[in-house]
Amino acid sequence: MKNRLYFISNHPKAQAHALQAVQKEQGKIGYYSLPDQDITPILKYAEKIPEHIESIVIIGIGGSSLGAKAIYEFVKPVNNLKRTLYLFESTDPIDINTTLKEIDLEKTHFIVISKSGTTVETFAIYKYVYSLHPDTSSYTFITDPGSPLDRYAQEVHADVLYVPRNVGGRFSVLSPVGLLPLVLCGVDVASLLSGARRVKESFFEQGYMQEPLLKKAVFYAKNHARYNINCIFAYSELLKYFCEWYVQLWGESLGKHQRHSAFHVGLTPIGLIGPKDQHSFLQLLTDGTRDKSITFIKIENFEERMMIPDLSLPHLESLDILNSISFDRLINMQCDSVIESLEQEGDIPIDSITLPRVDAYTIGSLIYYYELLTSLVAELMDVNAYDQPGVENGKVILKKKLEEIKR
Amino acid sequence: MKNRLYFISNHPKAQAHALQAVQKEQGKIGYYSLPDQDITPILKYAEKIPEHIESIVIIGIGGSSLGAKAIYEFVKPVNNLKRTLYLFESTDPIDINTTLKEIDLEKTHFIVISKSGTTVETFAIYKYVYSLHPDTSSYTFITDPGSPLDRYAQEVHADVLYVPRNVGGRFSVLSPVGLLPLVLCGVDVASLLSGARRVKESFFEQGYMQEPLLKKAVFYAKNHARYNINCIFAYSELLKYFCEWYVQLWGESLGKHQRHSAFHVGLTPIGLIGPKDQHSFLQLLTDGTRDKSITFIKIENFEERMMIPDLSLPHLESLDILNSISFDRLINMQCDSVIESLEQEGDIPIDSITLPRVDAYTIGSLIYYYELLTSLVAELMDVNAYDQPGVENGKVILKKKLEEIKR
Repeated sequence: MKNRLYFISNHPKAQAHALQAVQKEQGKIGYYSLPDQDITPILKYAEKIPEHIESIVIIGIGGSSLGAKAIYEFVKPVNNLKRTLYLFESTDPIDINTTLKEIDLEKTHFIVISKSGTTVETFAIYKYVYSLHPDTSSYTFITDPGSPLDRYAQEVHADVLYVPRNVGGRFSVLSPVGLLPLVLCGVDVASLLSGARRVKESFFEQGYMQEPLLKKAVFYAKNHARYNINCIFAYSELLKYFCEWYVQLWGESLGKHQRHSAFHVGLTPIGLIGPKDQHSFLQLLTDGTRDKSITFIKIENFEERMMIPDLSLPHLESLDILNSISFDRLINMQCDSVIESLEQEGDIPIDSITLPRVDAYTIGSLIYYYELLTSLVAELMDVNAYDQPGVENGKVILKKKLEEIKR
Repeated sequence: MKNRLYFISNHPKAQAHALQAVQKEQGKIGYYSLPDQDITPILKYAEKIPEHIESIVIIGIGGSSLGAKAIYEFVKPVNNLKRTLYLFESTDPIDINTTLKEIDLEKTHFIVISKSGTTVETFAIYKYVYSLHPDTSSYTFITDPGSPLDRYAQEVHADVLYVPRNVGGRFSVLSPVGLLPLVLCGVDVASLLSGARRVKESFFEQGYMQEPLLKKAVFYAKNHARYNINCIFAYSELLKYFCEWYVQLWGESLGKHQRHSAFHVGLTPIGLIGPKDQHSFLQLLTDGTRDKSITFIKIENFEERMMIPDLSLPHLESLDILNSISFDRLINMQCDSVIESLEQEGDIPIDSITLPRVDAYTIGSLIYYYELLTSLVAELMDVNAYDQPGVENGKVILKKKLEEIKR
């Protein structure tokens, strides 16, 4: 994984401050050490799931589902995975029903994930699914130790795994929250963690990742009022769900009251997929208000050598320039062309990330890179990256509404 | 369809100006009259497609694919559609290969859509697919009259339909571009157009839609520098692709150099899906910078009465408030709770759109509502909603790169 910045960011003091802050945080915040964990217990636990199980279903929402989905959807088309992953992550009745029709309950193992152990959506769906399939051995629960869900699982003698200490939902993908469903589907989680570890070591041990991460974080934080929108423009359909994971990580970590001021601050994440969104969003990037940074992500080697045939069509001869070009080359040329065109505008902060190939190691690196970047920017913007006080009020109102019905 | 604004917008002069401008534009810009078209020729043409065809595949990108996909994905789960829709809308080789594996070429009809008749992505894919299945009777082409693609189709005696005069790609969903694939899949396009017509008449004939549309457009345009981001927060998974369509329409129409100034302006669209994005984006909406407006969309009647069972789980008794509530009621209560919580913040411009049910009529109304809103805002911001000059430079650079390879 390479990261090249096309903008200038030269603030050594701010960089040193941010680096020191995350170094200090490492002892306190749990996600930093996840790449170094011993995964033997998870691998061993996964062996308990019977061979006839064909589908793995996550019942969970937000941080409990987005990470596993991002990794699964990235590696699925190129790996022969042994099981299919499904997700229940909405209370939309039509969506629940559609997913239920796709699975065979007898050949499904459910992973119910709720850090707090009381997530409304998760339990609404769990109650529904459990009433259709009341066999606790078909369920594994993942939650905080001592949560109501933990106590429930103990009471009904169901299996429960734990979210490690001080790991927040949106930073939990490399914990059992993401690893268990991925292992069960056959994803190489050891490689996934190696990729993350590589970026971690490179950052903390003054390797090649330290400079771009620090420079980028300082630029984003210093210019948050001017460039209040941060786009990822990823040139592969495989990164669609990675973008969704990024949107949660970035938006929920950085949209905050500042710790030591009365101000609302925030950076707004947007996920784009190329070349499709050249036909949707590029016009706004080029000619719209200068309020956006853009990170292009491309895949160096798709390992899928499909060629555009050497075919000339009458009246369409101008398109013969496409002939005998491979699609992977074309998509990367499209990405390079858009970078070049936006660079020519002169006032759009661009950087590019090049991923070497499509595998678990690569997506592990990318995930850890974005987690580090988020922590750095949060520190520089004086916000707590790890809480989400702003979502509580809606929950309280919903609870009141539900209680009123019962009365 | 109902639209309720929670913010105050009282600028009668600006409203009158915008109304007059779009009234004037009606004669010139083609999309306004699409709801009134005679669809007999499309229905008749669709009858020519053999009964054994099971899959309809769109080869097209941006305005050529997003609209049909939005409508298809909205009505699919509740209608018994007779054929399945697939899309080739990326040059990602892994994505192309994955889709190819899902279809049986012998049972597929392809619709190749390119307004200009020279879209690079579309022809790269068409050449590839055509080399696998070189039978022109399996393809219908949709393009501008006289385009290179039109001439090609004539030359090889293939069927070709036309994009009506002065209808831009992103405003073309209610033309053959969207209608043909939808008819072939069995979507009720007459209802779709009736829904659009209802909104059109209501707007132009001083009906219930005129006031909210004008007030909202004026507010967005006047405050474009302060609120530079416009979110849709739709409470149903069925509206996921509608959001993608909206993102293109809004971003590409409004991100422009102003007609009579040297300035870049633009409004940035974001599509969110509830309740999922309560666990992703809500924190940023609540506590982040005050730079966003939010339009909540909810569905009044899902016609899917799934109940949360009356099941009490040990240690999880606090969640008994969910028991015997239907999911459709729950999801709408979740939406109402979030609206209420954000309203309490006092400085976030919110409005809500209530859709009566899940059908073609409803999505037709919503689409036309957003097209009108886009035209109104563009007029007030002094930009041309119907061009996209900012995407040309990237195309020129790509062409150069491709030519260099050939040399």
